[in-house]
Amino acid sequence: MELSKIYEPVQEDLGKVEDKLRSVSKVDFPHLAELLNYSLMSNAKRIRPALTLLSGKFYDYNLDYLLPMATAVELMHTATLVHDDAIDNSLVRRGKPTVNKLWGEEKAVLLGDYLFAEAGAFTATTHNLRVIKHFAETLKTISSGELNQAVNAFNLEQSRQQYFQRVAKKTASLFSMATESGAVLSQAPEESIQILIEYGHNLGIAFQIVDDVLDFIGTEEEMGKPIGSDLAQGTLTLPSILLLEYYPEDNPVKRLFSNRDEQDNMKLAIELVCNSPIIEECYQVASDYCEKACHNLKLLPENASRQSLFEIADYVISRNR
Amino acid sequence: MELSKIYEPVQEDLGKVEDKLRSVSKVDFPHLAELLNYSLMSNAKRIRPALTLLSGKFYDYNLDYLLPMATAVELMHTATLVHDDAIDNSLVRRGKPTVNKLWGEEKAVLLGDYLFAEAGAFTATTHNLRVIKHFAETLKTISSGELNQAVNAFNLEQSRQQYFQRVAKKTASLFSMATESGAVLSQAPEESIQILIEYGHNLGIAFQIVDDVLDFIGTEEEMGKPIGSDLAQGTLTLPSILLLEYYPEDNPVKRLFSNRDEQDNMKLAIELVCNSPIIEECYQVASDYCEKACHNLKLLPENASRQSLFEIADYVISRNR
Repeated sequence: MELSKIYEPVQEDLGKVEDKLRSVSKVDFPHLAELLNYSLMSNAKRIRPALTLLSGKFYDYNLDYLLPMATAVELMHTATLVHDDAIDNSLVRRGKPTVNKLWGEEKAVLLGDYLFAEAGAFTATTHNLRVIKHFAETLKTISSGELNQAVNAFNLEQSRQQYFQRVAKKTASLFSMATESGAVLSQAPEESIQILIEYGHNLGIAFQIVDDVLDFIGTEEEMGKPIGSDLAQGTLTLPSILLLEYYPEDNPVKRLFSNRDEQDNMKLAIELVCNSPIIEECYQVASDYCEKACHNLKLLPENASRQSLFEIADYVISRNR
Repeated sequence: MELSKIYEPVQEDLGKVEDKLRSVSKVDFPHLAELLNYSLMSNAKRIRPALTLLSGKFYDYNLDYLLPMATAVELMHTATLVHDDAIDNSLVRRGKPTVNKLWGEEKAVLLGDYLFAEAGAFTATTHNLRVIKHFAETLKTISSGELNQAVNAFNLEQSRQQYFQRVAKKTASLFSMATESGAVLSQAPEESIQILIEYGHNLGIAFQIVDDVLDFIGTEEEMGKPIGSDLAQGTLTLPSILLLEYYPEDNPVKRLFSNRDEQDNMKLAIELVCNSPIIEECYQVASDYCEKACHNLKLLPENASRQSLFEIADYVISRNR
């Protein structure tokens, strides 16, 4: 199913989020304006702000709070991407040259800082202390997850459990902040908030697993960035961890990590993963997380947004970008 | 005068800020704990948290709010230093190797992000929306000032006015956030808040001018970092702008910026500045800002903290590190 169809209950308001994102780059400093416009106006899926708006649809859907929050969530996501690309020295994102590629790492770091701050400023306008505190804690969690990934680069001794813990930090925390903030800001009762936190958390893990699978089986054109970038960065993800489990003695990931220049091993690793049951197994794990995500959704009031949340879970598994 | 003597009215509470900073590095992830401890436990002057506490001493001195805010101010300052060093590839800070030197740029960027988030989390515990919003706006202002500096690296066409505007953004904004938050959180009346904002803003500009002078006349031992680093980064500051004004035709800064490798020109530029009235003129400008900072302080209730604020203005001019 198309995302635009799934977003239907909040489509108009997502347009208002887009307007707010556009307004962020209206600053009185041309170079900053250019960087902001470049990083914020892309063909992003806007899945996180959509989650905030949809999660806000069950009780008091107040756009005065939900629009700035949805905007903050996307700003924070963008900031993390800008910093990730800078530190990984990635050259392409969403089919376009990265900020660090075009303007250098220095400016990418400062742009990311500005975007984090702008996200904080939007969050503050919700006037909700629970959400404001959670916002700061989420950024701590994400940075700590990214740091964990950096520390473990080219480390072959990593378990599935460590992978899931890291994914919970670096990806699922922002998904669950997106859903929790929508619920909190619409005055949802605590049980409903918890259901939406659980949904966001599990959906986020599934999303990242599929992202990591697409880094093996996707195409550069669809993904908008090179395939195999995780292995190139020395990052073990679920597919490569399973490969190491299946072939514990000798395998191309081991060889690649010990001799980082050998591009043949990268190709071999990708082929081995693609021609094994690993992909299917990863999708099964992701599907289990999606099922867990949706498990209690039916306890929420029935409406079009609830249906959209179910559909996003399907989309996360079936997507090719 | 010694800082410890000036800090006397808040010395004990600054110790509690130190405890809070120490508690920040108590995290369940050894590598992050090491980075936090390394970046936060240094021989820093702690001038910004001292300003927050001193500014809070005129009305309701409530440590429940002032301690986390003072901690947040120092965390934000530390985060900006960690990112600055990473993007400038600086190797030494406060007499120690920088985080990027020891652990690489990638981890320095992520550590800075974590510190910004932790600063935000401490700010949120003040429960004061004015302060929380101002915190986010200040980080926007600082990043934008740093970006302005990066954009203008090796650009010889910069006026004093542009310099003061940049310094207001990248340095004075945090000084005035430190004083404003202390005033706001102690329930100061609006006129007193404005006096303390004005104090922080002008003190911050004076502080940066002296910092920029010390980059010419200081010693590496006292400064804890190499001398001439601004010129090496292509950053024009007040001394070099005055040098360009005094010698508009041909001068070593012009030659250095057009041929970045020529270390002789760096030496010549430093000598020329040191043996000219430029240094005296810079100190005069800094003194004028300090005078402006203190101008309305006498309208605040008379107490030991007010005296300390006067003394900090003297210290800022006379310091050698």
